[in-house]
Amino acid sequence: MENNGQPNKKSKWTIASSLMARRTYNPIRAVVDGMKLEPNPEKELISLSIGDPTVFGNLGPSQEMKDAVKKALDSGKSNGYAPSVGYEAGRAAVAKRFSLPDLPLDSKDVVFACGCSEALEMAILVMANPGQNVLIPKPGFSLYWTICTAYNVDTKYYRLLPERSWEVDLEHLESLIDENTNSIVITNPSNPCGSVYSKEHLLDICEVARRHRLPIIADEVYANMVFSNTKFYSVASLADEIPVLTCGGLAKRFLCPGWRMGWVLMQSRTGAFHEEVRKGLFNLSTRILGPCTLIQAALPAIFDNTQPEFYSHAMEVFEENAKLAYKTLHEVDGLTPVMPQGAMYLMCGLDSEYFRDIKDDQDFVEKLMCEESVFCLPAKVFEYPNFFRIVLSVPPEKVKIACQRIKEFCIRHKKNL
Amino acid sequence: MENNGQPNKKSKWTIASSLMARRTYNPIRAVVDGMKLEPNPEKELISLSIGDPTVFGNLGPSQEMKDAVKKALDSGKSNGYAPSVGYEAGRAAVAKRFSLPDLPLDSKDVVFACGCSEALEMAILVMANPGQNVLIPKPGFSLYWTICTAYNVDTKYYRLLPERSWEVDLEHLESLIDENTNSIVITNPSNPCGSVYSKEHLLDICEVARRHRLPIIADEVYANMVFSNTKFYSVASLADEIPVLTCGGLAKRFLCPGWRMGWVLMQSRTGAFHEEVRKGLFNLSTRILGPCTLIQAALPAIFDNTQPEFYSHAMEVFEENAKLAYKTLHEVDGLTPVMPQGAMYLMCGLDSEYFRDIKDDQDFVEKLMCEESVFCLPAKVFEYPNFFRIVLSVPPEKVKIACQRIKEFCIRHKKNL
Repeated sequence: MENNGQPNKKSKWTIASSLMARRTYNPIRAVVDGMKLEPNPEKELISLSIGDPTVFGNLGPSQEMKDAVKKALDSGKSNGYAPSVGYEAGRAAVAKRFSLPDLPLDSKDVVFACGCSEALEMAILVMANPGQNVLIPKPGFSLYWTICTAYNVDTKYYRLLPERSWEVDLEHLESLIDENTNSIVITNPSNPCGSVYSKEHLLDICEVARRHRLPIIADEVYANMVFSNTKFYSVASLADEIPVLTCGGLAKRFLCPGWRMGWVLMQSRTGAFHEEVRKGLFNLSTRILGPCTLIQAALPAIFDNTQPEFYSHAMEVFEENAKLAYKTLHEVDGLTPVMPQGAMYLMCGLDSEYFRDIKDDQDFVEKLMCEESVFCLPAKVFEYPNFFRIVLSVPPEKVKIACQRIKEFCIRHKKNL
Repeated sequence: MENNGQPNKKSKWTIASSLMARRTYNPIRAVVDGMKLEPNPEKELISLSIGDPTVFGNLGPSQEMKDAVKKALDSGKSNGYAPSVGYEAGRAAVAKRFSLPDLPLDSKDVVFACGCSEALEMAILVMANPGQNVLIPKPGFSLYWTICTAYNVDTKYYRLLPERSWEVDLEHLESLIDENTNSIVITNPSNPCGSVYSKEHLLDICEVARRHRLPIIADEVYANMVFSNTKFYSVASLADEIPVLTCGGLAKRFLCPGWRMGWVLMQSRTGAFHEEVRKGLFNLSTRILGPCTLIQAALPAIFDNTQPEFYSHAMEVFEENAKLAYKTLHEVDGLTPVMPQGAMYLMCGLDSEYFRDIKDDQDFVEKLMCEESVFCLPAKVFEYPNFFRIVLSVPPEKVKIACQRIKEFCIRHKKNL
């Protein structure tokens, strides 16, 4: 600290960041920021990388939704503090929407959060202590790891099986469970896989949880976002006695991720959350005090006034794009797309053996960007190297061009076998 | 767990909450929820308890602010994810607004948060490790303690002096500093005190920080909210080489606490935050991904279009109420109001020796509620028993009635000396 007997004031004033701030780390940002990403100036950039359905302007909140927020603004009654768990009326609307015949919800079973991100943070934090572990999917949404690591909660990755449409490797899941396991995170429909689990598969997962008496955290922010001939079952609808904290939000279904409106549902047929978790979620909500009150106040009208066509239009776009992308990529040697059944993503396997000069998924994504101005996400950010993820919310004509460019790129880089 | 040889499934499925969820605790809620609060059915309830200027409908966001949010809605461009630290344009607007002649800010010195609550959480968490201590004021806003305790960061309370308009007891402040002290939180203008520190006093506080090389966390959510003939100085404007993380937001100045728009400013003349804290704040922002994008997008227009009369009108209401309350309460034996110079609160001392049957501040507040339907906050929630806080954002006619009722209540309960 001393420099030639002179205190170096400047360096002395360098403020260290906390251990937690250093631990808190978002792999997507880290990988993407570390990539060489110069698009080809001769080709229009098509970004298939970010799970944000509003980026291209073809999809977004409905007029009914905007009107509901404007009404909240004009009412003058939604500018003050809400209860930290959220407005009663909004929570009642969420409770009504997600009630099941044999598992009715009530406003006190709902806690609002700033987006599904905070909902996931609250669901994990309310149950898990440092040193315990939470089982999370691989490939999976990286925020689970980010949250757990920030709070010194351990994670263990259970395998998903691409050859079985990303079903859980149940044996592997069960093998990971030890006396420190706190809970299991299930993502259905899945980001990044676009998989939608069958009733039977969800019952199998629940059976593992039941056997080990582990509560489930169900990330269902893509609830009901399924393609034709696919049915969505919430984990809670099949969980019987297993307590489920279900995380959701407006972001994807209502095409407004920036509005940051999320929730945690306490779903238990045995009252498992009554004694402690309800109070714990309340306590955690007093730190940040919930999402923007204008959106909270608009929520009942958003649910009531949104037309079925709004949902189906988005799903038609995603499904059309999924088919289109699958068809084109499936024809390419070295690529193995996995057809999704819902959500808004497609994962595609990459066999570098087929290519002259493609080392791995990150290398593929970088070179594709430089040569073809198409930006995909390397699946190593989901702990799943040698896959890449494409987003299906882009206008179909752009998906078509992008997949064509990927095809040409792969042919150009093909190894002479 | 076993009951007559039969596993009691129900009790086995009771899910325990985490240690953190149990630690996270908001003293205001705990005290208020534990109080016997039945108003007198014959008298209209006047609540002077919650620091929310919008409750009575006399104050709220301006038409310009509402129009700015509507414009963001109509643009269709503010529905997607913003960068986790916030939109560039919004951060640039905040940077411009809080730049000082000798300490210019730039968008990269600003991180958005979900209200000033999350801003305070980020500012504390980015620097302090478990086991370190943060110095916080007493009486003071209870969230500092809530945040620190949730994250196992210790707190030490430094005394404010009511007889000196709530200035910091500098000797006491300095006596608390040890090798584990991480930072000092300064609230100016103050909740709950309504105090506004002079330039000289702020320089004295800074001198303590400078001597011990401690960064300051300045809670300035009431910045510029001062009464006539009082000048507001930000800590950063006087801090010289001391690094300051300044927390602020729209909530109070713009009368919209429910909108949850807050920020942290990195203010250092020596670049003390460049190496680690900037990255640490970025990391922390990737957990929750910032406030509602509609408000973020509206921010530049909110700053540009708000008329001076909007600010001055609110301050006139607060000042009129302060004078009114002070005058009435000052005449009452056993009460010692401290005249505020800003913000929207007045603290009033209570000497139970003067009363027949008033044990302490909580007892006073409960009995006042039962008999007079006036609800104040007992200052024990601010770690300062034998004071109570009243809120000055209520319509003046109600403050007049409320203070008159307090006066009659005190006379009725007076001890025969």
